[in-house]
Amino acid sequence: MAEESNPREQGSKITLRAKDYAQWYQDVVRCADLAEPAEVVRGCMVIKPHGYAIWEKIQAELDRRFKALGHQNAYFPLFIPESFIRKEAEHVEGFSPELAVVTIGGGKELAERLIVRPTSETIIGHFFSKWISSYRDLPLKINQWANVVRWEMRPRVFLRTTEFLWQEGHTAHASHEEAVEETLQMLNVYESFAREFMAMPVIAGRKTPSEKFAGALTSYTIEAMMQDGRALQAGTSHDLGQNFGKAFDVKYLSKEGKLEYVWQTSWGVSTRLIGGLVMCHSDDNGLVLPPKLAPIHVAVVPIYKSDGERTSVLEACNKLGGALRNRGLSVIVDDRDECKPGAKFFEWERKGVPARVEIGPKDLAKGHVAVKRRDGGDRFFVPRDGAPDRILSLMDEIQDSLRKRALEFRESHTRTCDSFAEFVEIMAGPEGFVRGGWCGDAACEAKVKETTKATIRCIPLNNPKESCPCMVCGKPAEERVIYAKAY
Amino acid sequence: MAEESNPREQGSKITLRAKDYAQWYQDVVRCADLAEPAEVVRGCMVIKPHGYAIWEKIQAELDRRFKALGHQNAYFPLFIPESFIRKEAEHVEGFSPELAVVTIGGGKELAERLIVRPTSETIIGHFFSKWISSYRDLPLKINQWANVVRWEMRPRVFLRTTEFLWQEGHTAHASHEEAVEETLQMLNVYESFAREFMAMPVIAGRKTPSEKFAGALTSYTIEAMMQDGRALQAGTSHDLGQNFGKAFDVKYLSKEGKLEYVWQTSWGVSTRLIGGLVMCHSDDNGLVLPPKLAPIHVAVVPIYKSDGERTSVLEACNKLGGALRNRGLSVIVDDRDECKPGAKFFEWERKGVPARVEIGPKDLAKGHVAVKRRDGGDRFFVPRDGAPDRILSLMDEIQDSLRKRALEFRESHTRTCDSFAEFVEIMAGPEGFVRGGWCGDAACEAKVKETTKATIRCIPLNNPKESCPCMVCGKPAEERVIYAKAY
Repeated sequence: MAEESNPREQGSKITLRAKDYAQWYQDVVRCADLAEPAEVVRGCMVIKPHGYAIWEKIQAELDRRFKALGHQNAYFPLFIPESFIRKEAEHVEGFSPELAVVTIGGGKELAERLIVRPTSETIIGHFFSKWISSYRDLPLKINQWANVVRWEMRPRVFLRTTEFLWQEGHTAHASHEEAVEETLQMLNVYESFAREFMAMPVIAGRKTPSEKFAGALTSYTIEAMMQDGRALQAGTSHDLGQNFGKAFDVKYLSKEGKLEYVWQTSWGVSTRLIGGLVMCHSDDNGLVLPPKLAPIHVAVVPIYKSDGERTSVLEACNKLGGALRNRGLSVIVDDRDECKPGAKFFEWERKGVPARVEIGPKDLAKGHVAVKRRDGGDRFFVPRDGAPDRILSLMDEIQDSLRKRALEFRESHTRTCDSFAEFVEIMAGPEGFVRGGWCGDAACEAKVKETTKATIRCIPLNNPKESCPCMVCGKPAEERVIYAKAY
Repeated sequence: MAEESNPREQGSKITLRAKDYAQWYQDVVRCADLAEPAEVVRGCMVIKPHGYAIWEKIQAELDRRFKALGHQNAYFPLFIPESFIRKEAEHVEGFSPELAVVTIGGGKELAERLIVRPTSETIIGHFFSKWISSYRDLPLKINQWANVVRWEMRPRVFLRTTEFLWQEGHTAHASHEEAVEETLQMLNVYESFAREFMAMPVIAGRKTPSEKFAGALTSYTIEAMMQDGRALQAGTSHDLGQNFGKAFDVKYLSKEGKLEYVWQTSWGVSTRLIGGLVMCHSDDNGLVLPPKLAPIHVAVVPIYKSDGERTSVLEACNKLGGALRNRGLSVIVDDRDECKPGAKFFEWERKGVPARVEIGPKDLAKGHVAVKRRDGGDRFFVPRDGAPDRILSLMDEIQDSLRKRALEFRESHTRTCDSFAEFVEIMAGPEGFVRGGWCGDAACEAKVKETTKATIRCIPLNNPKESCPCMVCGKPAEERVIYAKAY
């Protein structure tokens, strides 16, 4: 077995990606100390400090973007009366199998059972109906950071868990046009956040009717490609039309004095993003993080043998650490005496710290420091004087390089295909995204799923019109959609 | 009825404090748009944007203080297996009547019922036992921001709700001494936060055994006085001893090579703080907020009649707004045409904005602006040139003035008392805190509660030793404790 696992293991193994991608993912999450399955609460997870610190960085940036667009945070109850879930027909059908139900409260059987929220359209719909009466109350743009519960039969840390953390935006508007604009605006926020902060390129598009959110008119999605060629739905934005407005009687008096139902949207991303981040960039040595979401940017490791060396080397390390912190970077000067440098290198590598700096007596004598990028390449030397600025600019280079690499990977794993037989072969093999025609028939979509387990991930926005055959039935189609297997 | 309600009402009444303090509180919360009871989910509440913005400010500052002391955030499951709650005898007895129980998940009856966390000592104890094996793993200092559920029969928005938001710190240490130090350190963080940010003086002290947290060795508390003379327990910090360590088998190998149970602490504050903030400072005109927790610091209201006036006045308002924002203040320039100035004054007053600035054509001509402090006093004029700096320093003055006023109120409503008959009279009248001797007997404590509904709020830290009679039985006591009715 030894040759199949990571040769650099020291007590904890990381399975090679090529050997077992699913196991590799679990190993990276465990070895980087991001999270662990809460085996005693089936389907739930514990997010450990290093994982939670990434979530805090995701939250901070998204929250900033939401507020800049005029959204306000609020908080709605964890529990939803069972009757609320039943008010929107598609919604109850979609969520019923996944619900956790509170039947006892304060020692007594409840008259009406309470659902632990799987999402909050219903309870928020109820309150919107109390808060909105006139066009002057619109648009109402609310966001909530919360935990939600959807019973999960095949849990995977971050990717699919019974409880997860997320944000859910809920807005109400006076016209469908304005609601659609909001839906697409927030999809755009998710796309640019994924690209700029996660260094994760995504394809923004529309879901087919069979894949849309239970209760929406139209759902939009951003789809990322993982390193096994599979798709990860990384965020969704829904045009809810007047469905919840009608179910919860959310009406307003228009400028013209008419009573109208509001048009609503909802949109969300979750701790699933952390799973996507892990699978997008990491390698066989562990986690790789884009600097913009790394809790620690730089690990400075002193190299010394004697006490005398220790003093001068640590002084230089702390000085560099201070200079880097002054430039806004998060730095750890790893001065643990009980650890050897090799063990330190190994730990920060597994945890995805973007850059490692080593300073030893020889480096002091030569007036330089050694730098190693987590995203690859050989160790190199930088003059001590210029090191803080060089390392700062290195962060941008790493961020950019990860994004480009992920984009190249996706492009080289995206094929155009006109034949169903060829498609089946692709899905059996190295997988990836397939750009194929779709006639719009749900039967063709179903056949794809039955035969290969792949689905239509999305119909890309601003998709060029292209006369092509439906990949499944061969009838004329007007555009190509993205087919892939997904998490 | 008209003479009993606020004479300045415009559609929404604020009951006078002197008339009905409990109703006044509800009115202030509603009129400031902080939150509302979620009547459809009994005991729960919706925290509205203005209330949630205060919570975000509380979170940001506390989180900063926790992290500065070496705590890391993490996230543990919402659900706790029922068997876990039963592992610590006192704990299960204390919390059983308050539990919400999930009995159905994913459409099926669960083999083991799940408790919606009322607090997380048990589930965190379980994970600590997995994470801790050596003295090198200690201290372990974790904090969690989360929602918790305790079934509440007499809910009051912010003060007592079935679901509330909080933070719970959980730490593990190698010695009892270190755990006690942590417990008191965090109590001190709460005390200084309440004083410096909430402008709310609190008495830090020890709970009596009958009032301690279910499962703790010793509980510590900060107790604030509300304007009706009642106490509000605003935060608690617990020395858990080895109780949960033994219940969840959290052991470590000491430096001496011995297997020992860890010593644990836990500490928390919740959205209840917002209720305390409201009741500490607000008046018959609505919310009063200390600037350090105010989502909006300054409301700038333009006064104009003609379009020409509007242009020049708004220009001056926006210029001042920009200058104030450059000084780090949050400013609203209220340029709504559909509202008259009086209605705007009224709205920002009710919402607790610390300062209001008015600019009209006459002010422009005279080169000044009019300023009104929310915390009282007449409107006054400030030269336009110096206005940004003057208003900035005004924030410190208001912060300080609120704190001093609250402290004076507490001092003037705290009496020293040696006679039980006198005490009963005080508790029937204007209430307040009573400094009375306590012999240490639980029977005396129980008699106080039965007779007056008051309790021993705490035994103040660094309490001077003082020979005095027990206020209840007259036997010799060594110190005075704080007696009061409480929320």
